[in-house]
Amino acid sequence: MVKKFGGTSLGSVERINAVADRVLEDIQQGQKPILVCSAMSGETNRLVALAQEIYPYYYDKAYDMLLASGEQVSISLLSMALERRGISARPLLAYQLGIKTDAIYSKARIESVDKEKLLSIVNKGEVPVVAGFQGVSGSEITTLGRGGSDTTAVALAASINADFCEIYTDVPAVCTADPRLVKNVSEIPKLCFEEMMEMASLGSKVLHYRSVELAAKFGVKIHLRSSFEKREGTLIVPEGEVLENPVVSSVTHEANTAVVKIFPIPDGQGILGQLFALLAEKGIVVDIITQSQNEEGQRLAFSILENDLPATEALLSTFLESKNQMTILKNMAKISTVGVGMKNHPGVAARFFKVLNDLSVPIHLVTTSEIKISAVIDTKNLEASANGLHKEFDLENE
Amino acid sequence: MVKKFGGTSLGSVERINAVADRVLEDIQQGQKPILVCSAMSGETNRLVALAQEIYPYYYDKAYDMLLASGEQVSISLLSMALERRGISARPLLAYQLGIKTDAIYSKARIESVDKEKLLSIVNKGEVPVVAGFQGVSGSEITTLGRGGSDTTAVALAASINADFCEIYTDVPAVCTADPRLVKNVSEIPKLCFEEMMEMASLGSKVLHYRSVELAAKFGVKIHLRSSFEKREGTLIVPEGEVLENPVVSSVTHEANTAVVKIFPIPDGQGILGQLFALLAEKGIVVDIITQSQNEEGQRLAFSILENDLPATEALLSTFLESKNQMTILKNMAKISTVGVGMKNHPGVAARFFKVLNDLSVPIHLVTTSEIKISAVIDTKNLEASANGLHKEFDLENE
Repeated sequence: MVKKFGGTSLGSVERINAVADRVLEDIQQGQKPILVCSAMSGETNRLVALAQEIYPYYYDKAYDMLLASGEQVSISLLSMALERRGISARPLLAYQLGIKTDAIYSKARIESVDKEKLLSIVNKGEVPVVAGFQGVSGSEITTLGRGGSDTTAVALAASINADFCEIYTDVPAVCTADPRLVKNVSEIPKLCFEEMMEMASLGSKVLHYRSVELAAKFGVKIHLRSSFEKREGTLIVPEGEVLENPVVSSVTHEANTAVVKIFPIPDGQGILGQLFALLAEKGIVVDIITQSQNEEGQRLAFSILENDLPATEALLSTFLESKNQMTILKNMAKISTVGVGMKNHPGVAARFFKVLNDLSVPIHLVTTSEIKISAVIDTKNLEASANGLHKEFDLENE
Repeated sequence: MVKKFGGTSLGSVERINAVADRVLEDIQQGQKPILVCSAMSGETNRLVALAQEIYPYYYDKAYDMLLASGEQVSISLLSMALERRGISARPLLAYQLGIKTDAIYSKARIESVDKEKLLSIVNKGEVPVVAGFQGVSGSEITTLGRGGSDTTAVALAASINADFCEIYTDVPAVCTADPRLVKNVSEIPKLCFEEMMEMASLGSKVLHYRSVELAAKFGVKIHLRSSFEKREGTLIVPEGEVLENPVVSSVTHEANTAVVKIFPIPDGQGILGQLFALLAEKGIVVDIITQSQNEEGQRLAFSILENDLPATEALLSTFLESKNQMTILKNMAKISTVGVGMKNHPGVAARFFKVLNDLSVPIHLVTTSEIKISAVIDTKNLEASANGLHKEFDLENE
């Protein structure tokens, strides 16, 4: 059984000891655990801050080597805590376990894992304690990007054809909405991969998008649960295994949003392609895009993370002839409803817009897919809208 | 040219940038530097404290992996600082450079270095930035013990048959005594390997004993100098290269000392061998030993570091029949004079003891070698004795 522990679960000596106690109980009950660790909470941020001071926006070998040290510390300490409890632990860095990735530093993708080595350690009766988030390309250390330890855990589970991967975190389950924003949220006992992927890409911070994508690809079910409580959390499974799908499973939001409108768009062949290529080069992720044409000319609007606004404005002011062509909407939020049940229940969009309309909330951008509806609204309307949608789709805890 | 930077030289972003500036100047002057780094100052202590909290006195794989993370951070950051200055830097962990050691965790010894890899990186015009203090045994990370980064630097210099190894530290040179204790100390421009080894083993913290031993073995001269000033520091060279040896080169001390006296010693074949074996098992280093026999029985006295006193007392109380057989002298210090010139100048011991006698300082233990005299005295007499000896042997700065 692969068990991944997040940074909060390993954030202090006390918590590392608590994790070791829990692993000891699992072993006494006959489990053969394979552990994957994140860096102790705060550590990655500390290292990133040092790096930014020395060479901002430099993401290469040295940066990845720096960040990988965080997991090296946590697996060493957890291994020592296990050894103290009489458990033979084997701390494993990526190069020692052959977690091979491509060479794209700071967002590498796992290509293979040395499954034989992993199984031989387990079969010797040792507990592998694997550094998450890191890989190796040739002899160089790579890292997988934020949340990458989840992906390491799923990749290990997939490599040994495990049915399950447990992800221990600081929340007891995936909820129907963010409890800091919405009243009476419920815990979701089961979700399908597609829903979880949508939620991850729409702003839910609980699981890393790529880890769910990988789990779906290899059919590894994820059990997301609290490292502080023993009860079960949320199972993330193939769609067929969720017997009764609610129409909507959750209300998700991303508060840190801005909208950029351009009118008129400069003339020229492939001008939009050029613009989005330039934005991508700067690492600016463009989310919702709408474009329309009428007699007056071509209109474009797109949403980005608000953090990326200064870089975007700088880029556009050289790209456009005049600043008047650009309108920026700040303090925006994206609110979404997600659910595989939407496929079979028409009318969800109608209910979604009615809720916002009844609350007199203006909508700036909209996008939909088979299983989600998203709208960009003003942040000041976020709380009322989220609570309204949560209630409308019967997600409240009774 | 191998250049080693200690923890204080890399202790902050500002200092890392200063080291990078200095390396840039060296390169502009035609040097092809090979850099070796310690962990940022304070970092190793932080990691040791975490380890001690989780599993005290556990020195195995996981412990060494933990400690090795400190140098991983410093080489990454220095590499980034160099890259920002347009220098192509190559951060190298021990496994990447094939720094192979034995498998004695936390005090491993270097067996070999992949010289071809090191030279090929230099010949490509890259600057190797090597993690000191760490090695690899099989696929496991080992560490070389406190001060081990000096040893890494000398080992790299030896592997490529370099004449010199520069060690940058927070003092400008080796001094004739500790300036915090003795007035008017002088800087020593040249010392021979044997003297530096004695000084290192007698309490001087400037260089690691093993690094000097290795330098002597391979004829690598060490240039110890300040990372904050440009002037030359102390050269450590073969004895033949020091033209004029002063009788005594330095006064060295170790304040953290305790003396244990045992009388009568229990009867039995090989009883002393047993005792010292038990002490060694606990990692207690016994320094000066004296033993004497008269009609009353056998007497034994030995000195240890005061930190080891609790463990020593615990061990002796089970080893001896009665506590009355044991006398402990606390708050002791060892004071020594060192100099290869002593070989050719008789009468140094007489002058040494006369100084202490004139100051009415009682001596608890004494040991001598061809090039040093050491005495254990009460700590309260340390300052007066050190100043007296420093003056007697004409070491004062004029």
